[in-house]
Amino acid sequence: MVDGNERVEGKRLGEFDIIAKYFAPLATDASALGLRDDAAVLRPPEGQEIVLSCDTLVEGVHFLPDDPPESIGHKALAVNLSDLAAKGAKPYVYLVALSLPREPSAPWLEAFASGLGELQKSAGICLVGGDTTATPGPLSITVTVLGLVPHGHAVLRLGAKQGDRLYVTGTIGDAHLGLRLLKEPGLGRLWGFSDEEAKFVVGRYRRPLPRNDLMLLVRNFAQAAIDVSDGFVSDVEKLARVSHVGALIEAPRIPFSAAARKALEHEPQLLEALITGGDDYEIVAAVPEASAASFEAEARAKGANVTMIGRLEGPAGEARVLGPCGQILKLGSKGFAHF
Amino acid sequence: MVDGNERVEGKRLGEFDIIAKYFAPLATDASALGLRDDAAVLRPPEGQEIVLSCDTLVEGVHFLPDDPPESIGHKALAVNLSDLAAKGAKPYVYLVALSLPREPSAPWLEAFASGLGELQKSAGICLVGGDTTATPGPLSITVTVLGLVPHGHAVLRLGAKQGDRLYVTGTIGDAHLGLRLLKEPGLGRLWGFSDEEAKFVVGRYRRPLPRNDLMLLVRNFAQAAIDVSDGFVSDVEKLARVSHVGALIEAPRIPFSAAARKALEHEPQLLEALITGGDDYEIVAAVPEASAASFEAEARAKGANVTMIGRLEGPAGEARVLGPCGQILKLGSKGFAHF
Repeated sequence: MVDGNERVEGKRLGEFDIIAKYFAPLATDASALGLRDDAAVLRPPEGQEIVLSCDTLVEGVHFLPDDPPESIGHKALAVNLSDLAAKGAKPYVYLVALSLPREPSAPWLEAFASGLGELQKSAGICLVGGDTTATPGPLSITVTVLGLVPHGHAVLRLGAKQGDRLYVTGTIGDAHLGLRLLKEPGLGRLWGFSDEEAKFVVGRYRRPLPRNDLMLLVRNFAQAAIDVSDGFVSDVEKLARVSHVGALIEAPRIPFSAAARKALEHEPQLLEALITGGDDYEIVAAVPEASAASFEAEARAKGANVTMIGRLEGPAGEARVLGPCGQILKLGSKGFAHF
Repeated sequence: MVDGNERVEGKRLGEFDIIAKYFAPLATDASALGLRDDAAVLRPPEGQEIVLSCDTLVEGVHFLPDDPPESIGHKALAVNLSDLAAKGAKPYVYLVALSLPREPSAPWLEAFASGLGELQKSAGICLVGGDTTATPGPLSITVTVLGLVPHGHAVLRLGAKQGDRLYVTGTIGDAHLGLRLLKEPGLGRLWGFSDEEAKFVVGRYRRPLPRNDLMLLVRNFAQAAIDVSDGFVSDVEKLARVSHVGALIEAPRIPFSAAARKALEHEPQLLEALITGGDDYEIVAAVPEASAASFEAEARAKGANVTMIGRLEGPAGEARVLGPCGQILKLGSKGFAHF
């Protein structure tokens, strides 16, 4: 420890108290050892493979400094659950590594843990461990998730074939509008938003709902899938690149919410930002033509909102977007990149 | 993404290039999917439990800003492997979540990855995934490790019994001296250190060697164990607390290296800092009296350096240190605490 000479102990809310009071109640499975150890011991069910993934959220990069702690907790788990959803994997257990810029207050911890807890409950996942450290930098959270999938049934980015149909769940671009609105509240008036519409897009940014309810639909029908985190077009391109196929997205087919359509009416040039802005946490799935009808029927039966948005065709490794007049759109960027 | 409007793409060393060039060569197992996906798919061998743990290292907190990138990579993996060693678990796979304060240079990445790679090779573990993000804060690395242990054979903090002998591997306090020396190079003269001794203690701080070679010794003989990361006394106390026993450490038995003994001769009041400074990554094991002789014989046969340093006795949940004259030492603190 660098600051080994300036240790503090006791009186205040220590690491032990933080874990015992706020996180141990989330560690409902025996494998978590009540969070009184520094490791979990898991006995995964037989015949299952483990899908393993982690994502870091940094204040000022992945969420805003004044986002409520409850939504920060929610989002840290949600973006990781979304990876499991795209793989067709059932949520199993997770770890939270928390780097705190200052001694956290009890209300902050309570709200953060409740954000984790509510989503954990609905997703059927269990906290089994983690780490809590101080940092001189911004708040940062790394969640590691483990999911389960029967042997050989994980859905990957690899596996899509030329000619497959491309589907996306839900709607695209709401989270981007939510973020823009949080940074510049006046935009709501420009876009003609009601309070409800403003609240809706902000909610989509702060509290994305991962599509774990579509796990079986993805597992049973998708040859390849990816969740939309960095930007719709760039994530489609990632799938295309790994699968060595091209992707052609038809812009008029892209599903937008009523709020997003309203914003687009007032500011048509928003289109590019909506389809490259990211943070949607919807799933893009490549479905073979032959099973498309059953996929759509099954989705309807489940009440799932899925939309065909194009096909896998064209130059390998590239995602192209066809505009309303049949021209290929020139995009300044296809999504977010850290470097 | 907060900075969704200021995206960059292409020309420079992007996330994809970083992963493909520096990290994919460490992903030697098929489960890693060549790091071309955002998840790994594992098929753990049957009859094994999975030990799961994660630790975050933050620049300026867990390592120094001018530590070489190679040793930062080494240490990030080492502290996590150390958790597996204390559990008697065999290293299996790991994930690296990297938050970078600026676009990393090729030489930095190469050195960082080589630090991971060399230790990975000697530990027999494989990189299977992770995340790379930008941060406005300091460099931060969260490693998640998975280890394997036959059903029911994981060694926990829980399980030590009153009367058990306490053993520790290797020597204690060297890393603390290394850190002090890096912060104040003049101390080497005060302690009468040769260049070799200075290099030795700095190496112990920057490149701790986790005790995975003692996995079977821990698994077969320890009723409970913990690795020494936050401070020798406080980590013994953690084990005692979870096991609901007391611990009595005899200071004259604590094993010190020749360098540490030399420093203690010149500055006897260093004792407290050495036994509470942390970063040792040795293992403390509670061994029942009845198997102590076989444990010691087995350790000798393996060439492992283990020392009995006390017993589990006294007030439950407390670690006390007996000084050379039979008095209980009053310690200002027993180890590092973040809050």
